[in-house]
Amino acid sequence: MLAQRGTRTSLRKLLAAGTLVRAAGAHTALGASLVEEAGFEAVWASSFETSAARCLPDASLLTMTEYLEVAAQMQAACSIPVIADVDTGYGGVMNVAHMVREYEAAGITAVAMEDKVFPKMNSFVATSHTLLSVPDFQEKLRTAKNAQTGEDFFVIARTEALIDGLGTDEALARCHAYADAGADAVLVHSKRKTEEQITDFLSQWDQRVPVVIVPTTYPKWGANEAHCAGASVVIYANQALRASVGAVRETLRSIYLKGSSKSVEETIAPVSDLFALQNLDSWMELDA
Amino acid sequence: MLAQRGTRTSLRKLLAAGTLVRAAGAHTALGASLVEEAGFEAVWASSFETSAARCLPDASLLTMTEYLEVAAQMQAACSIPVIADVDTGYGGVMNVAHMVREYEAAGITAVAMEDKVFPKMNSFVATSHTLLSVPDFQEKLRTAKNAQTGEDFFVIARTEALIDGLGTDEALARCHAYADAGADAVLVHSKRKTEEQITDFLSQWDQRVPVVIVPTTYPKWGANEAHCAGASVVIYANQALRASVGAVRETLRSIYLKGSSKSVEETIAPVSDLFALQNLDSWMELDA
Amino acid sequence: MLAQRGTRTSLRKLLAAGTLVRAAGAHTALGASLVEEAGFEAVWASSFETSAARCLPDASLLTMTEYLEVAAQMQAACSIPVIADVDTGYGGVMNVAHMVREYEAAGITAVAMEDKVFPKMNSFVATSHTLLSVPDFQEKLRTAKNAQTGEDFFVIARTEALIDGLGTDEALARCHAYADAGADAVLVHSKRKTEEQITDFLSQWDQRVPVVIVPTTYPKWGANEAHCAGASVVIYANQALRASVGAVRETLRSIYLKGSSKSVEETIAPVSDLFALQNLDSWMELDA
Amino acid sequence: MLAQRGTRTSLRKLLAAGTLVRAAGAHTALGASLVEEAGFEAVWASSFETSAARCLPDASLLTMTEYLEVAAQMQAACSIPVIADVDTGYGGVMNVAHMVREYEAAGITAVAMEDKVFPKMNSFVATSHTLLSVPDFQEKLRTAKNAQTGEDFFVIARTEALIDGLGTDEALARCHAYADAGADAVLVHSKRKTEEQITDFLSQWDQRVPVVIVPTTYPKWGANEAHCAGASVVIYANQALRASVGAVRETLRSIYLKGSSKSVEETIAPVSDLFALQNLDSWMELDA
Repeated sequence: MLAQRGTRTSLRKLLAAGTLVRAAGAHTALGASLVEEAGFEAVWASSFETSAARCLPDASLLTMTEYLEVAAQMQAACSIPVIADVDTGYGGVMNVAHMVREYEAAGITAVAMEDKVFPKMNSFVATSHTLLSVPDFQEKLRTAKNAQTGEDFFVIARTEALIDGLGTDEALARCHAYADAGADAVLVHSKRKTEEQITDFLSQWDQRVPVVIVPTTYPKWGANEAHCAGASVVIYANQALRASVGAVRETLRSIYLKGSSKSVEETIAPVSDLFALQNLDSWMELDA
Repeated sequence: MLAQRGTRTSLRKLLAAGTLVRAAGAHTALGASLVEEAGFEAVWASSFETSAARCLPDASLLTMTEYLEVAAQMQAACSIPVIADVDTGYGGVMNVAHMVREYEAAGITAVAMEDKVFPKMNSFVATSHTLLSVPDFQEKLRTAKNAQTGEDFFVIARTEALIDGLGTDEALARCHAYADAGADAVLVHSKRKTEEQITDFLSQWDQRVPVVIVPTTYPKWGANEAHCAGASVVIYANQALRASVGAVRETLRSIYLKGSSKSVEETIAPVSDLFALQNLDSWMELDA
Repeated sequence: MLAQRGTRTSLRKLLAAGTLVRAAGAHTALGASLVEEAGFEAVWASSFETSAARCLPDASLLTMTEYLEVAAQMQAACSIPVIADVDTGYGGVMNVAHMVREYEAAGITAVAMEDKVFPKMNSFVATSHTLLSVPDFQEKLRTAKNAQTGEDFFVIARTEALIDGLGTDEALARCHAYADAGADAVLVHSKRKTEEQITDFLSQWDQRVPVVIVPTTYPKWGANEAHCAGASVVIYANQALRASVGAVRETLRSIYLKGSSKSVEETIAPVSDLFALQNLDSWMELDA
Repeated sequence: MLAQRGTRTSLRKLLAAGTLVRAAGAHTALGASLVEEAGFEAVWASSFETSAARCLPDASLLTMTEYLEVAAQMQAACSIPVIADVDTGYGGVMNVAHMVREYEAAGITAVAMEDKVFPKMNSFVATSHTLLSVPDFQEKLRTAKNAQTGEDFFVIARTEALIDGLGTDEALARCHAYADAGADAVLVHSKRKTEEQITDFLSQWDQRVPVVIVPTTYPKWGANEAHCAGASVVIYANQALRASVGAVRETLRSIYLKGSSKSVEETIAPVSDLFALQNLDSWMELDA
């Protein structure tokens, strides 16, 4: 039989169970299947990874069509939920309504939308990041929740207040307002080298909805510590992509310099591993 | 200024210069840019890589639309030529004509078409691989050459005779017939553990057009040796993908088991490397 | 509120109710919404219309990706079911399994697959139309039915026996064999100027599954007569496209010759009609 | 031989010849081919038509990917130039640079970009239409012109000043500033029932670049009069779509009510006309 496709579990159901949800970033169906294989509970359909795969900055250059296509391909290859990074929701409130309808129809059950102004720039780029006003972002959240047709669809409201240098009070005020507007969870993003901003936030958070964190710049803080401190979802957003770039560079350079692939053959995955990841045996049975 | 895009050099021009052309496989624009960065003269838009990235077998399941989209994205990110693996040409002679027009319009200047019957199965899968008759494949080649509008477009005729167990004589007869029908080069594929089939072929080849080889199963045979033996293009078809799978697996497993990404941070590429691969600085200047 | 999207009713449920189902062809979401507006119970996502809209013959040139995109856009705009014309299933049995998974994931609940060999040519083109053997097409039907995950998905087996000049006995034998292999309905296609072939077929059909007809060349035979004779679904496959071509030609020619659009303004739909078809008011409320 | 594809003539070359250019709107390759067949010199790839075909408002909901796909399909089917309606350029200056690169790579040689803020709303919708500041739109125009790689690429700067109720002086000031920033032509749009605003504009325009008009609401003003008054390009933006909606509605309703397609057969285009528009004979010769 062909491997079953599509979500078996939604993020909403995972969180209802109360256990920590760990997600890792990917930008292809293959990458998503490796996230699931490694044991993670969810896949992060990262805008940064997806735009980097196209050699373009993470700056609202790729379109919703392109981001959704990749996210849907990932979801089709997994039984864990894909959390789609939808940036600003691709424009204003109408764009948000359209986004929710398109994502839900494509089988995505969780999205994370941020309070930057369209077009956005990646949070780690040293530039200004204009934020939307609270009422305007609340309107987008209400629109998103009104637009969904199924009960499972889950909207994470991401604040970039700390990224923009506005401090924990602003982050808390925004996240409380976003939860009031219907957000199913909040994501508080920091680019500090340590987790203090986040622990400060979590210690004052009233837990009305779950909190999502992305410890890219503060990697020493463990997932269990984060969970104890009050985080419900931890996203390892782009490490897989960065591992891939390093390995591909080294492999290609070795082949080029040595004039053959002999020396890399022992360290790279065999073709048979790829056949397994392609579910080849299941497909071949169809032709038996 | 934004990095220039599109082919600066075509495969036809590279071969006219007489030097060995080495190509490496990729399945994203980012992968293609890493192939160029490593020094290769061309990128192989591999059907195997592209279908594996979707967790699907390399068996004519993805459509021309999907293969072309990926190939065109790769070409847009490189100044070296992309050689697109177009399998059987996606059907009969009309499909071939349509394929050439679509690929050429999308900026692809070289394609490799094989003499299997649609739908095909990947050459390394232990199954039968039905070949088209010589006259039928010649007709497809003539159609391809008639359909091109620019002079640069380059059609490689790939024979699967050795893959199908038919021997060197059949491979030679087919390749001569394909060259007679207008092929700009021939690709002779073997899945033996050593290069004997290929050296046997090359020793009897009359050099009317260049020969392309893919030493996946005989990696000890160096590119320079192959060039001396008469090969003009050597394709390292899927090593980058296989390197990527290994590295991503290891990285994700480490994060999952250790509960943080601390230990992998030192081995994976920094975010700043990805910014460079995204040409971020050039794009940021636009907003200055 | 935004208009609800997606199928409310499936073809399976419509047929279970026993009433005649009439479908009309379309190739855009707008066209599909006009089919629903006119009162039809289903939309026919016609390969002929979709390829004609691209100025390409209906000959397996457009890919599954392209046909599915259009069919899914139509389904998203309607509450009646879209019956997708999937030609031969786009290749062999693996392609059929892939097709069913992709169509079902995109929200399509009914497909019609025909017993021609890939690549096919449109049935009304005066050329030979090679048919697949009965066991091979049965295998495709079994594969399709095994691949579906929901209960609603509906597979119509279309025989081209009459188109290929093989006679009613062959058409009946094939359709019985297709029903035995799991087809949910059969479609018997004829290009005669009158309905005799079809009435002959229906009089000998044992009704084990519903019969679908496409009276393009025998338009005088009314839907009610067809229903009384035993047909369950009548498809008006391409009349809307042909009406559109006539009207667009006349309108453009008039503007061109008269040097203004004044004279056509009174006969064409006002811009406000288009706003209504775009559901503009519902969308504007989002911004209120 | 297959019909040649792609632009033979660019808008730049047509305007250099000094004759009036008339364009008509379309949203499919077939529609574009009918525009060419009727004698027009250019095709207008209308955002209004393209979004209406999807039953969505013309409000920046469809993405650049979707608009470009349609425009490129139209250009592939014509030998006259397609003028692509690119709305606001899909965001900020980076989006504009990306847009120009993508459109140019896809074979489009002319785009019209407007001075509204993203996301925009269709000009005929009775709502406010916020305009970008002049320096900001000039920056977008400079970016567009810097991003093009070929000499033929042509950027039309469209002002919505009259649509926004700002008067002729503002429209003139903006258009002069846009021409100074490098625009190859200006488009001045009005929704008045008569042409006075436009004649007022043209009488004061210093002709430093050509002027484009869209007489949707003032259809009595003939193309020759407009040309004499100083307009170089006249766009009949959506009449073909509106003709199509009327004809399809009538045809479908007739089939539904009469229970057969008999009565419409005499008024709609025969299937053979569609075969001709599909270039069927040329394609069939490939299989001869």
